[in-house]
Amino acid sequence: MSRRSLIATSALGLAAPALVAGATFADRPASAAAGATQRITIYAEALPGGLFGYGLAPGAATVPGPILEIWEGDTLEITLVNTTTQRLSIHPHGVDYSTDSDGSPLNASYNNPGETRTYVWRSREMIAATGRRFMPGSAGYWHYHDHAMGTDHGTAGIARGLYGALIVRRRGDILPERQFTVVFNDMMINNRMAPDTPMFEANLGQRVEWIAIGHGGTFHTFHLHAHRWADNRTGMLEGPADPSLVIDNKDLNPGSSFGFQVLAGEGVGPGVWMYHCHVQSHSDGGMVGLFLVRNADGSMPAGAEEAIHRFQGHSHSTAAHQAHGD
Amino acid sequence: MSRRSLIATSALGLAAPALVAGATFADRPASAAAGATQRITIYAEALPGGLFGYGLAPGAATVPGPILEIWEGDTLEITLVNTTTQRLSIHPHGVDYSTDSDGSPLNASYNNPGETRTYVWRSREMIAATGRRFMPGSAGYWHYHDHAMGTDHGTAGIARGLYGALIVRRRGDILPERQFTVVFNDMMINNRMAPDTPMFEANLGQRVEWIAIGHGGTFHTFHLHAHRWADNRTGMLEGPADPSLVIDNKDLNPGSSFGFQVLAGEGVGPGVWMYHCHVQSHSDGGMVGLFLVRNADGSMPAGAEEAIHRFQGHSHSTAAHQAHGD
Amino acid sequence: MSRRSLIATSALGLAAPALVAGATFADRPASAAAGATQRITIYAEALPGGLFGYGLAPGAATVPGPILEIWEGDTLEITLVNTTTQRLSIHPHGVDYSTDSDGSPLNASYNNPGETRTYVWRSREMIAATGRRFMPGSAGYWHYHDHAMGTDHGTAGIARGLYGALIVRRRGDILPERQFTVVFNDMMINNRMAPDTPMFEANLGQRVEWIAIGHGGTFHTFHLHAHRWADNRTGMLEGPADPSLVIDNKDLNPGSSFGFQVLAGEGVGPGVWMYHCHVQSHSDGGMVGLFLVRNADGSMPAGAEEAIHRFQGHSHSTAAHQAHGD
Repeated sequence: MSRRSLIATSALGLAAPALVAGATFADRPASAAAGATQRITIYAEALPGGLFGYGLAPGAATVPGPILEIWEGDTLEITLVNTTTQRLSIHPHGVDYSTDSDGSPLNASYNNPGETRTYVWRSREMIAATGRRFMPGSAGYWHYHDHAMGTDHGTAGIARGLYGALIVRRRGDILPERQFTVVFNDMMINNRMAPDTPMFEANLGQRVEWIAIGHGGTFHTFHLHAHRWADNRTGMLEGPADPSLVIDNKDLNPGSSFGFQVLAGEGVGPGVWMYHCHVQSHSDGGMVGLFLVRNADGSMPAGAEEAIHRFQGHSHSTAAHQAHGD
Repeated sequence: MSRRSLIATSALGLAAPALVAGATFADRPASAAAGATQRITIYAEALPGGLFGYGLAPGAATVPGPILEIWEGDTLEITLVNTTTQRLSIHPHGVDYSTDSDGSPLNASYNNPGETRTYVWRSREMIAATGRRFMPGSAGYWHYHDHAMGTDHGTAGIARGLYGALIVRRRGDILPERQFTVVFNDMMINNRMAPDTPMFEANLGQRVEWIAIGHGGTFHTFHLHAHRWADNRTGMLEGPADPSLVIDNKDLNPGSSFGFQVLAGEGVGPGVWMYHCHVQSHSDGGMVGLFLVRNADGSMPAGAEEAIHRFQGHSHSTAAHQAHGD
Repeated sequence: MSRRSLIATSALGLAAPALVAGATFADRPASAAAGATQRITIYAEALPGGLFGYGLAPGAATVPGPILEIWEGDTLEITLVNTTTQRLSIHPHGVDYSTDSDGSPLNASYNNPGETRTYVWRSREMIAATGRRFMPGSAGYWHYHDHAMGTDHGTAGIARGLYGALIVRRRGDILPERQFTVVFNDMMINNRMAPDTPMFEANLGQRVEWIAIGHGGTFHTFHLHAHRWADNRTGMLEGPADPSLVIDNKDLNPGSSFGFQVLAGEGVGPGVWMYHCHVQSHSDGGMVGLFLVRNADGSMPAGAEEAIHRFQGHSHSTAAHQAHGD
């Protein structure tokens, strides 16, 4: 998973230290883009097993698709290449777009089979309103998905893997060292069931970002063992007086998304920690995966191998996991 | 929809500029009402198609009922006239009421067929508690509904249309230019299914207030295309440091309500935007409606007619929509 | 319910006034426990009717289990005695624990039948991060439950009563006079259905703390009549500018918990108030209970007896309720 995010980060220029507007947003007109326009090409492709995926290069499609990141104020111009035989589109949450980038059949905004089409997603900082209030900016842990395959709401496209995470960062936000996308989609996680669900990995103390997305037709709650977060924009408290709820379990229903950062194993130590849907029949049915927190030097912590073997119900080498996780 | 809200606004005197207590609430006794008592009569009536509605005049019942608004500190005295042959009541969320205004059979608080009964809803500003904390005041996007028809929880009354929005405003709150009530009630929106769901309308840049209410027996998520809001009391950020989540998709389950204001088409332009339940089988099944953002001068934006026709699946004139929307 | 909480309070030393670190948390290492270690023994026992419970003494198991409380920074060391013939464990939300206190079969952390095992739960205050942000501390309204009976997720243990509330308080938090634990577990409240659901009691004006927990496999919304709270850490506003939503209805889905304090009957007077799931089929099916707010002197308010009798559908004396409630 971190593999894919690094690609995305590189593609979108996040590696460059982009610092920081401060409180200057109020004296810019709302329509002015604060920053740069990033241009990427996304390939929608058929995958084995009846799945479909988005990818940043031909043959690179994955489920979920790549993590897309921009700074608040920037514009993302996406050339979507539909390599499939199905009608499909890409529809974002949280950002600004005209009707022709809506990604919906309602607005005739989709790719026919084999068609290439450009979608423009803009973002902006908060806008001062009257009464010392602000119309919200675009910063957030959002997501994107198909809105045209199967039905006018993209029900078949979503069911078969056409979704991914979209992050709009505010200047000054803390950048993570690792990123994981977790999509609860009907009774699956990233269209997989245990023990084939993703095992995410980090070293003790690394700053890890989780982006959780809900899809499909069933209700879910996302739970992570031994870590917690604030139920606000960043998942961290914005100051000692931030009143936000601190939680380790949150509703994750269709169309919703949230994100947060934790320090891997902070206060609890390394080991194998579960993330799962807390609806009992869902976790029992396979909506569970592993978060492997390695020792700070990257070595396996005591007991981790045994836990992984218990989870998988068959022998599986550590090396193989490393290959998957990095 | 704005039609009904204007009626309500007029009835409750919101047009008058009511300014503003400031931070004086701490030195008033909690039991003292800050302001005026508004007295209205609501008629519960049978409607065609087996529906029931509340209205502010005989023969004026609608589904949902009128938007009721008061200032925090005010009292609303409702004379409920039951013109039907069913036991029914009116039960509010968010405000203060004695057991005899509970609206529940438990407290023998309901109207028998043909009966007239008065319900008193009070509101109050926040109360200072120890430790620099405050017991919450009544300000919020609330709702009201029957609690007596069919079962002791009003299940039949709610299923058949006896519900509406209740807004308690804090002094200083920004007033909207348009108001829409959206009720996800079982598999319907305002007891209608697409393409007969409400088409809400505003001109580009108008300040539009959405009040979303959940009812019935199924889970839902409310999504609005191309607009977003803060997940707090007003839907706007209360300052640059407000840590609230910014969202465009929110759980809308039975008994819950929330509200927010957007500037119609701000940053995205005019056009036809969907609002829908994001549970895929629900949107596919008809839980979707349109938000028509006209040009600033009220004219139809390019492509809007076509989108509306696509949605309706048959020819339908713009003039007819205008008559519905204003 | 207050009966159980008083036991827990006594066991955990909450009666002692433990005051207050203030803003010193930033200069303490994250790994340092701020305070004391509380040591308790919990007995997991079989109960009549196929239920199981946790208790603080042999023969004292209840459903839900005792309310456990610690101050943020303290450690709770639990010796769990499994007196049953089933594999079981105790798994907490919100606090810190090593893999061997995870309570999960994944980490081989459970009690075999008849086995005694120690679980250590630590807590900590918020930690300063870069950018004037803070990694959240442990303070919150959490819960604990079995994670090993029946399935690797404790589905049978939870279904049969192995759950309870866990509160981590921040220095300076306001302490309540009464505490109620409400667990929506499948179609039951505290594994009971109306009219056998708990009737909670308080005198007018008493500070009452509700801890609401969701479990099982169905979705729910928790509604309390005539009282409201802020949707933040404490349920109270942290200042006049706290932007939190104020609500009286909240999603209560499996694995989630929240808590809040109200002043019983404040602004609405004494009487019998319902709390219930607002999913209509659930309330109609028995997910409803009573909150009896007595007069300030403890006497029964007018109409309360009648309401209770209506609820129970049969004669039941006040004295019996008093015995249950205190």
